[in-house]
Amino acid sequence: MINFASDNVTGASPEVLQAVIDANSAPPRMPYGNDASTGDVEARLSEVFETEVKAFLVATGTAANVLALGSLAPPWGAIYCHEHAHIQTSECGAPEFFTGGAKLVPLSGADSKLTPDGLHAAIDRSGSVHHVEPAVLSLTQATEGGTVYSPQEVRALAEVASEAGLKVHMDGARFANAVAALGCSPAELTWKAGVDVLSFGGTKNGCLGAEAIVFFRPELAANAARQRKRGGHLLSKMRLLTAQFEGYLAEGAWLRRAAHANAMAQRLAAGLKEVDRVDLLFPVESNLLFPRFPKGVAQRLNEAGFLFYPENLDGASRLVTAWSTTEEEVDRFIAAVKAMTENS
Amino acid sequence: MINFASDNVTGASPEVLQAVIDANSAPPRMPYGNDASTGDVEARLSEVFETEVKAFLVATGTAANVLALGSLAPPWGAIYCHEHAHIQTSECGAPEFFTGGAKLVPLSGADSKLTPDGLHAAIDRSGSVHHVEPAVLSLTQATEGGTVYSPQEVRALAEVASEAGLKVHMDGARFANAVAALGCSPAELTWKAGVDVLSFGGTKNGCLGAEAIVFFRPELAANAARQRKRGGHLLSKMRLLTAQFEGYLAEGAWLRRAAHANAMAQRLAAGLKEVDRVDLLFPVESNLLFPRFPKGVAQRLNEAGFLFYPENLDGASRLVTAWSTTEEEVDRFIAAVKAMTENS
Amino acid sequence: MINFASDNVTGASPEVLQAVIDANSAPPRMPYGNDASTGDVEARLSEVFETEVKAFLVATGTAANVLALGSLAPPWGAIYCHEHAHIQTSECGAPEFFTGGAKLVPLSGADSKLTPDGLHAAIDRSGSVHHVEPAVLSLTQATEGGTVYSPQEVRALAEVASEAGLKVHMDGARFANAVAALGCSPAELTWKAGVDVLSFGGTKNGCLGAEAIVFFRPELAANAARQRKRGGHLLSKMRLLTAQFEGYLAEGAWLRRAAHANAMAQRLAAGLKEVDRVDLLFPVESNLLFPRFPKGVAQRLNEAGFLFYPENLDGASRLVTAWSTTEEEVDRFIAAVKAMTENS
Amino acid sequence: MINFASDNVTGASPEVLQAVIDANSAPPRMPYGNDASTGDVEARLSEVFETEVKAFLVATGTAANVLALGSLAPPWGAIYCHEHAHIQTSECGAPEFFTGGAKLVPLSGADSKLTPDGLHAAIDRSGSVHHVEPAVLSLTQATEGGTVYSPQEVRALAEVASEAGLKVHMDGARFANAVAALGCSPAELTWKAGVDVLSFGGTKNGCLGAEAIVFFRPELAANAARQRKRGGHLLSKMRLLTAQFEGYLAEGAWLRRAAHANAMAQRLAAGLKEVDRVDLLFPVESNLLFPRFPKGVAQRLNEAGFLFYPENLDGASRLVTAWSTTEEEVDRFIAAVKAMTENS
Repeated sequence: MINFASDNVTGASPEVLQAVIDANSAPPRMPYGNDASTGDVEARLSEVFETEVKAFLVATGTAANVLALGSLAPPWGAIYCHEHAHIQTSECGAPEFFTGGAKLVPLSGADSKLTPDGLHAAIDRSGSVHHVEPAVLSLTQATEGGTVYSPQEVRALAEVASEAGLKVHMDGARFANAVAALGCSPAELTWKAGVDVLSFGGTKNGCLGAEAIVFFRPELAANAARQRKRGGHLLSKMRLLTAQFEGYLAEGAWLRRAAHANAMAQRLAAGLKEVDRVDLLFPVESNLLFPRFPKGVAQRLNEAGFLFYPENLDGASRLVTAWSTTEEEVDRFIAAVKAMTENS
Repeated sequence: MINFASDNVTGASPEVLQAVIDANSAPPRMPYGNDASTGDVEARLSEVFETEVKAFLVATGTAANVLALGSLAPPWGAIYCHEHAHIQTSECGAPEFFTGGAKLVPLSGADSKLTPDGLHAAIDRSGSVHHVEPAVLSLTQATEGGTVYSPQEVRALAEVASEAGLKVHMDGARFANAVAALGCSPAELTWKAGVDVLSFGGTKNGCLGAEAIVFFRPELAANAARQRKRGGHLLSKMRLLTAQFEGYLAEGAWLRRAAHANAMAQRLAAGLKEVDRVDLLFPVESNLLFPRFPKGVAQRLNEAGFLFYPENLDGASRLVTAWSTTEEEVDRFIAAVKAMTENS
Repeated sequence: MINFASDNVTGASPEVLQAVIDANSAPPRMPYGNDASTGDVEARLSEVFETEVKAFLVATGTAANVLALGSLAPPWGAIYCHEHAHIQTSECGAPEFFTGGAKLVPLSGADSKLTPDGLHAAIDRSGSVHHVEPAVLSLTQATEGGTVYSPQEVRALAEVASEAGLKVHMDGARFANAVAALGCSPAELTWKAGVDVLSFGGTKNGCLGAEAIVFFRPELAANAARQRKRGGHLLSKMRLLTAQFEGYLAEGAWLRRAAHANAMAQRLAAGLKEVDRVDLLFPVESNLLFPRFPKGVAQRLNEAGFLFYPENLDGASRLVTAWSTTEEEVDRFIAAVKAMTENS
Repeated sequence: MINFASDNVTGASPEVLQAVIDANSAPPRMPYGNDASTGDVEARLSEVFETEVKAFLVATGTAANVLALGSLAPPWGAIYCHEHAHIQTSECGAPEFFTGGAKLVPLSGADSKLTPDGLHAAIDRSGSVHHVEPAVLSLTQATEGGTVYSPQEVRALAEVASEAGLKVHMDGARFANAVAALGCSPAELTWKAGVDVLSFGGTKNGCLGAEAIVFFRPELAANAARQRKRGGHLLSKMRLLTAQFEGYLAEGAWLRRAAHANAMAQRLAAGLKEVDRVDLLFPVESNLLFPRFPKGVAQRLNEAGFLFYPENLDGASRLVTAWSTTEEEVDRFIAAVKAMTENS
């Protein structure tokens, strides 16, 4: 069985698992992050982002997103996002819950990407008490369609947001894949381009379950510690969560693993492009692909042990490569597609 | 340094860590609990409790408590609990958050325990729309004072609750310690005594971060899956959380580890009882002790490298033993107390 | 100055004001609705709707809508409505607040009306915990565009909703205008067509500030009394609110006043249709009109003392007639439009 | 029948009703407070309080209280109040709802009054993320026991609050009675003594249903307009609510009516003090009395047509006088008490 259903079907990468094992064998440590290592991770993230950040670790990507949004949007706020955004489609209303009822405003845009013009047109400037108050722009990087925003594109969106008084949140569940794809620095893609808060994903790219909420403007984090606790997201054995991020960041593992996943996606895309009657819904820029197969083929591939979500978006299937995907897996999949489409 | 600050200062026990390592090395699995193991844990918990249960795993005790309460109490409900209850004192309003604003009604009672008479007197029977609606009894087992409710005591409280239409929640962050102390079955201490939902703790007793919300009446769990997701508490790599509980429950590890922690608490209590001018605030029935030291002694013990919370409750210090506490640690602590009190 | 800005720019109608004056002069009465008259109104509404209803009076239309929705949708629910719906556009997130964070799903549809096909296509049938749960259909009658649903149209929508397990809410801020326009019975337009809860508006049609939440299925009202109190919407001098509805319902005043407003809208529409270069955005079926004036005309009409919202929807202005609108006001407006368009 | 059950059993006073009638007969006005009169009321309140205030009118006392608290307390905040406080006992959790889940901390204190020492001892200064954050002091003036805080007492409490970073809210459902009783200025009793926000009651003292939320620090009102709308508390025909406050404040009616109610309470108290075996639970300082009658007497008085709540607090009955209470009513009640206690 070869599993392209998601990058969270994998386990933890060796370096992350080893860091947890090492931390676990250390003597007792004070709980809830009152240990030296947890402070160290914040310092380490400040190095990675070339600026002093406030960082809060949690175990799930939804928690990271919604605690970030809860720090930015009041209950009577509007959060502008793409209609494909994970926070809009796949978090069961968690953003509404953690903001106390803010309203998500889904916008369309090609390739799962927001446009400055689309955002500008959508922002309510009436100031009316009958309308929710424009509060946040949330963009996903890499996007749910597997595309990426360039630093210039992020900046252009952030400028529209900033002019209207919005804060800017980046859902970076696959931030590593975006950085690896673009070859820019983490700083260029975030605070230098106008991002206020980043959900920095670890889970999909090698952690057991670890995400960092990274605040580039410390004043926005004033209530984040209490909001995390109140959300039930402050782990008592925090140092085991911390250890994951230590292992993830050490020696550039996070970027190396993401680059591999991206490369496997490119290999997959290259193979699929050679197949007649298969096309790709979006440009392949990170580790997600949305191929459209001839009728019946997706189902037969599933039945043959190639796992992925068929009919995921506009008639296209979704395939995801991961840090653990091998060239052999990719090649076997391509071969299967070729065989099936020739016979379909 | 010897750490009695809490049972969550420890790492994971070997059997739990090994289970995680094993699960991590398995091939990719579908995320969000859509793997075979996660279903197995529910079956395993049904065996442990001798009845068919619905179970939901989460990474923190606060999450377990508040998702349980969120399944039982409406926003306009009252939750009756002891004034020492963790949900009242130490969860930063998480119960209010997850219930949409229910009101906790703190009650007094000796030895950190609720009494049937106290509960009966507190329940509002007016039916008035001006008052919140009585909804839940939440009791902690073992209690925050380290005492335990016998099955008969649980039943007596649950009967008062049930007569008034309340549901019964048990915060079992140290449920294992209570079961080990009482020598009864998990079933006798829960559903057979009238408990509807249990927060079954794993973290303090050997897990990395794993708790089970165990529903004894499946109909109460109707919305639990969505509430968990909406709270950001559905882990994508769920099987690594599942593995913790598998290792925890296998071959009675959970009870054996708890019994050891309890035994270390008894050894500590026995040693302290021999020391003049030291007395204990509550009976020592699980793995928590609340000694009152002569003035200045607690601080000097802290300074000498014995970590615990001084002046925690009514002038008493709080000490907690764990699965990893050794006899030698206990004995060294007793010796230090003796030396210091003789000289104070 | 002639005011077509809304039907809430008027005061109370004479019969409603007199009912309040009479109630006020009566001896003291127990507060919070524990007076005989308030029970009488429920009985009176049961007569009007030809079925036994549970009714709750409040002072604002937003309160009526959101308390109704709060009785129907869980925090993790989806509420399907038209993209023009008042609950979506003009209540500052009140529905999200009173439901604890439910998600409104705005749908398009010609003439401000939902279609059975559009609703059918929008309902999420995945059952996925990642998605909010389909919970409610909310339709506005008369619509925000001034059109009305026939009983058959309501039934067709309610059938799609019901098959998917949705409850049906009708925002009847202008319910009287719809009944008067259609000439059907209140029952035919609500419970007989599948509506579960109606926000029955009084304010726009002659009350000082009074709306009734009318439950056609009493079991849905189980928590409505506490939700109203908790929302701050239980008036202590309830009988003065009750008196408004007594005056409103007595001798068919509510329908007579609405019929007059509708007639004034027809007169206005007839006059505007005679003017070149003015067209109407929607069919005029109740007391709202959306004329498109030649460039600059709307502003000049405003400046000349004719108040209404220009550029309200798709380039059209919004005009609303009321119980107090006179033929003379209509005729003066038509004359002014004619004069200005001839010269523009 | 003579009704002492509450001061909200009465209707509106003549001057308030006339103001509504007058406003209603005026030409159409823009809705939602966008009329000149509503701005005038804010100016008028600024005169009454001798400082520039921001004011928001609502129809219920619960709405005034909870919108005020919602402006002052975050969801993770603590609100300190007396255990008798209306917000704690009688609003069905509305404060929790409007604050997003803040925790009310009820404190004891003689005569229904908080003490500076009691408040000081209760405030959590740990700064711990496990605890809710101290946010607000709410005191009731006149209290639920009918007693009043002197300006010096308010100031002493506000100083303790302010030192700990708390905001100060005053529930002034019977503020007029307190001002009339103390003979001080409204300013001395509020902002000059450290109060940040006042719920200024009108309903109990002559309005149909009107309360003002008065902000003495405008920056605290930044979101109040949206919160009022979102709570469903922005009336469309706002000018009819405004008119009530105009009538209430004109020519000192509010103080004259309250002074009368207070005088009736003094007359009642004087009469009851002459009766053997009847004593009063609290000093009578405003318009509430808590007499303890001999066994059976309260019930017989009720049966004889004297309405009040027996067994309301600590075995005492509650009687309330109002703007409309007459000397004859008081005297008839006293006579009845005398007759019944002689024969009991």
